[in-house]
Amino acid sequence: MTMQDARTPGSGRKAGWHKAYLTGSRPDLRVPVRQVHLTDGRDVTLYDTSGPYTDPDAATDVRRGLPPLRENWIVGRGDTEEYPGRPVRPEDDGIRHTSPRGGLNNLDAVFPGRSRLPRRGRGGAAVTQLAHARRGTVTEEMEFVALREGVDPEVVREEIAAGRAVLPANVNHPEIEPMIIGKRFLVKVNANIGNSAVTSSIEEEVEKMTWATRWGADTVMDLSTGRNIHTTREWVLRNSPVPIGTVPLYQALEKVDGRAEELSWDVYRDTVIEQCEQGVDYMTVHAGVLLRYVPLTARRKTGIVSRGGSIMAAWCLAHHEENFLYTNFEELCEILASYDVTFSLGDGLRPGSIADANDEAQFAELRTLGELNRIAKSHHVQTMIEGPGHVPMHKIKENVDLQQEICEEAPFYTLGPLTTDIAPAYDHITSGIGAAMIAWWGTAMLCYVTPKEHLGLPDRDDVKTGVITYRIAAHAADLAKGHPGAQAWDDALSDARFEFRWEDQFNLALDPDTARAYHDETLPAEPAKTAHFCSMCGPKFCSMKISQDIRREHGGDLAAAAGAGTGAGDGAVGVLDPEAGMRLKSEEFAANGNRVYLPLAD
Amino acid sequence: MTMQDARTPGSGRKAGWHKAYLTGSRPDLRVPVRQVHLTDGRDVTLYDTSGPYTDPDAATDVRRGLPPLRENWIVGRGDTEEYPGRPVRPEDDGIRHTSPRGGLNNLDAVFPGRSRLPRRGRGGAAVTQLAHARRGTVTEEMEFVALREGVDPEVVREEIAAGRAVLPANVNHPEIEPMIIGKRFLVKVNANIGNSAVTSSIEEEVEKMTWATRWGADTVMDLSTGRNIHTTREWVLRNSPVPIGTVPLYQALEKVDGRAEELSWDVYRDTVIEQCEQGVDYMTVHAGVLLRYVPLTARRKTGIVSRGGSIMAAWCLAHHEENFLYTNFEELCEILASYDVTFSLGDGLRPGSIADANDEAQFAELRTLGELNRIAKSHHVQTMIEGPGHVPMHKIKENVDLQQEICEEAPFYTLGPLTTDIAPAYDHITSGIGAAMIAWWGTAMLCYVTPKEHLGLPDRDDVKTGVITYRIAAHAADLAKGHPGAQAWDDALSDARFEFRWEDQFNLALDPDTARAYHDETLPAEPAKTAHFCSMCGPKFCSMKISQDIRREHGGDLAAAAGAGTGAGDGAVGVLDPEAGMRLKSEEFAANGNRVYLPLAD
Repeated sequence: MTMQDARTPGSGRKAGWHKAYLTGSRPDLRVPVRQVHLTDGRDVTLYDTSGPYTDPDAATDVRRGLPPLRENWIVGRGDTEEYPGRPVRPEDDGIRHTSPRGGLNNLDAVFPGRSRLPRRGRGGAAVTQLAHARRGTVTEEMEFVALREGVDPEVVREEIAAGRAVLPANVNHPEIEPMIIGKRFLVKVNANIGNSAVTSSIEEEVEKMTWATRWGADTVMDLSTGRNIHTTREWVLRNSPVPIGTVPLYQALEKVDGRAEELSWDVYRDTVIEQCEQGVDYMTVHAGVLLRYVPLTARRKTGIVSRGGSIMAAWCLAHHEENFLYTNFEELCEILASYDVTFSLGDGLRPGSIADANDEAQFAELRTLGELNRIAKSHHVQTMIEGPGHVPMHKIKENVDLQQEICEEAPFYTLGPLTTDIAPAYDHITSGIGAAMIAWWGTAMLCYVTPKEHLGLPDRDDVKTGVITYRIAAHAADLAKGHPGAQAWDDALSDARFEFRWEDQFNLALDPDTARAYHDETLPAEPAKTAHFCSMCGPKFCSMKISQDIRREHGGDLAAAAGAGTGAGDGAVGVLDPEAGMRLKSEEFAANGNRVYLPLAD
Repeated sequence: MTMQDARTPGSGRKAGWHKAYLTGSRPDLRVPVRQVHLTDGRDVTLYDTSGPYTDPDAATDVRRGLPPLRENWIVGRGDTEEYPGRPVRPEDDGIRHTSPRGGLNNLDAVFPGRSRLPRRGRGGAAVTQLAHARRGTVTEEMEFVALREGVDPEVVREEIAAGRAVLPANVNHPEIEPMIIGKRFLVKVNANIGNSAVTSSIEEEVEKMTWATRWGADTVMDLSTGRNIHTTREWVLRNSPVPIGTVPLYQALEKVDGRAEELSWDVYRDTVIEQCEQGVDYMTVHAGVLLRYVPLTARRKTGIVSRGGSIMAAWCLAHHEENFLYTNFEELCEILASYDVTFSLGDGLRPGSIADANDEAQFAELRTLGELNRIAKSHHVQTMIEGPGHVPMHKIKENVDLQQEICEEAPFYTLGPLTTDIAPAYDHITSGIGAAMIAWWGTAMLCYVTPKEHLGLPDRDDVKTGVITYRIAAHAADLAKGHPGAQAWDDALSDARFEFRWEDQFNLALDPDTARAYHDETLPAEPAKTAHFCSMCGPKFCSMKISQDIRREHGGDLAAAAGAGTGAGDGAVGVLDPEAGMRLKSEEFAANGNRVYLPLAD
């Protein structure tokens, strides 16, 4: 691989960071990275999810959409074909009745970029990354994620073939920079966006998507439930560098005016095809909410808290019939296989409170998800499994262990979990705790929770806080799992901290802007950025400064003490300044009977 | 016990909360609680650390200080005596040279409340709660914390006698509401305050102390390092309802103009006595930083990051002598025993980065702390042990397990730990993750970390964010440990959530103000506070509303399905509406061959 530089050629190097690319086996296989330049001359290369928006050489225009990076790869494989596609109807945007205002009557809302014919597998063939992996093919997408993760492409292929990882990449979403979700890879973070009947607009949702990826969201779910669902999604998809997930049930429900009992397989199927043609990369499907499981929620403290789960439970009870997503699951698999849409099998009966965690309703559904996972795989559909929810710490590990066992190590994709219910307005933290733990134990992707959870819709600041919190959880898990390379980032920042390289600390921080702003609050002057102390203790009390002084002034002492065998040292003992004074001090030390302290009387 | 109400007698009951008291075996033994009144008529009683400041019947005046609640108990035990005490000197406030401005020349700074003669054990006797517990005495303080924790007083006595819990309560700090720190009790949270050479004033520090306890700090450490250390501490102590901790070394260093090598046992001893007489409840003592351990830090990424640790390491190397805190430890024990000051044995060699976690320097010091713990106990001094620092998740448990083994289950008091180094400005979160886990595994008290950690001094907002984050971690741990009664709070809030009692949710929240404000941002109108949906999904999509509708409309179906033995249910299956339609539905169900769905073809 070679490194390409997105800076203007000839521009001078200075501390900070810029976007760069790792190039693979073909010139159009360019993996984005964040290249941080340290003041000591070294570079640190970090994973980057922000897309072309942070590349000054890329001319982005949300009205045109991102370039279709993967188009040549998809076409080149020759296993898909274009076709006219399903016509877009007013009700796709929630417009059932002629209305003088709102919705698509606002023509500005229609995405103005070029339109493509949709594409699907020739003759309904499965064109999934899973199908390719099973045939032994390393696709361009697999090579891309291998470069991105720093692993061998064959490892990527194997993990996908075994169903232990998914690479969500609809053939109709060529704009994405491929990424992989699986426990052997870096832990991923999803950010939810979406308008609702109560608030927010298309522009806001596109802005939230780019904002979320800027701070590190690996995928984005568009959970819109209000008007303009189809059009909002079109804008989001065409401008998204990351895979987009949806819950098709939300749009289907809008098509039947919000009456759950009027839902049907036909309406749902139509909606799924609509979304497959647009390019949705993964879909949450609540096919595990079986009629017989609904009574298991009757004595729960908070009943059913998944929207999709409650909608399907209402449908089942209204008709006294089995969930139509379950009874039509095989047909659904055939559809998804021909676009390479990944299943995210929803946990409609996940607990919504500490009291309801790990109950029979939850685990009964999980067993059904295990059954559906096997069926999906038999159709070559990539599949991940969604998980809770609200779970106290001591019940978290059971969730991962059971899911991994029942679902044959299919990637687990969990919402939090929240480890207590008592802190509305801080549920990014109650859940960040659970997220870090569950990811350490094997969850492959974490769905973020923002401070507004349970209270309102997240705004721009909430999205950022949610993403940063979950990036922390994901990275803490990468460290705990011993992911190769994860600790290099911590080490680089710690080195900068110990050496008072403040600008390097800021540039390496997950959120450089806030770190710099906090430092400026107490010590705003520019010299403070190079000061050998900070505002916490002042110059006299700085432990790191004292620690450095010790090394400088007592290098010989340290070496002597280390070399003289005090009984406490071992191979890890350092010798900082081996030549200076070591022999002399060592001799003094030995002459003193190797005793450096008086034994304590007892 | 009886419940006393701090509201004006005869005032009407309305939803919200107020301060109340549980009265013990004597009228002056009144344990404060936060009494939350729900709109459904129930009350929820929560632990309260906020002191008299939240009691409208208590007339508080920071210039007079809090009433000496414990004075009669201390005097009544008859084992202490008043004595003239050490005179306060200008250098106690860092004033070594005559100066026209600053320091105590500002006479307004001197605490104006009544002064008491200091008190100590008669003839130097150990008057500690540990000594009393070992003799089989249940002190008033022990009864107080038993009521506060909802356990038998004998359990409190036993845990203290065994050294598994401490009850920090200097005989010269009669203002405190006693609290206990031990793994069998609720996990506690400490908040650090303190001015520095760079910033902040006495008023700000007193304000931070009351603010921290308002949000749930169980103890406060005054880590001041600038001018006016003595006077700042006097104001803080006289106004604090919670135990106050310090690091005497910081003040001792000020007395020698910041030159570590000029420190001596005499200066340190004098400072300790000064602070014992003022009423400091626990002291961090870095007696485990031995000369021979210093070289073990030489190859570390971030050396020594504890201020006390680096000061003592510098002293040891400068003199090439053993740490004077270690060599004089027995005398220190005698002093602390006669005031009932609790040891917090500092981990001066704690890791300051992920790379340095669980290294030989850290564990070598821990073994010495185990030795010092035994010595302290032989002098009847209550003792807890401080812990890291920066530790990745997979190395956290080893810290607790080793500490508990080496230190004979003495309470562990940890700073975080931070689970990654990459997120300056979010270290309340990187450390909140580690704090929750380490507390679950046995840490008794958590020292908070604020968003300003590594960057600057915390302001009011940072103190609140730090305390709330750590209260979340502590409560998550209480749940995971199965602390009796902990889950009642979560359950009450979850019930309120499921029943759309918004005001109850806010009043039960750890931070009612922010929860209410976030809700208002999206749905500000008053009717929204009783709406059966929220701003996240709107009325049509609310899963909890659908879930409630299901229960209301399909109670019979649920009962039938539950009663007809579908094979999925068990004893946990609920019957919501046993009379309505159950028999009919059940018969229908049975007539249908107990089949509620078509088996999936495979």
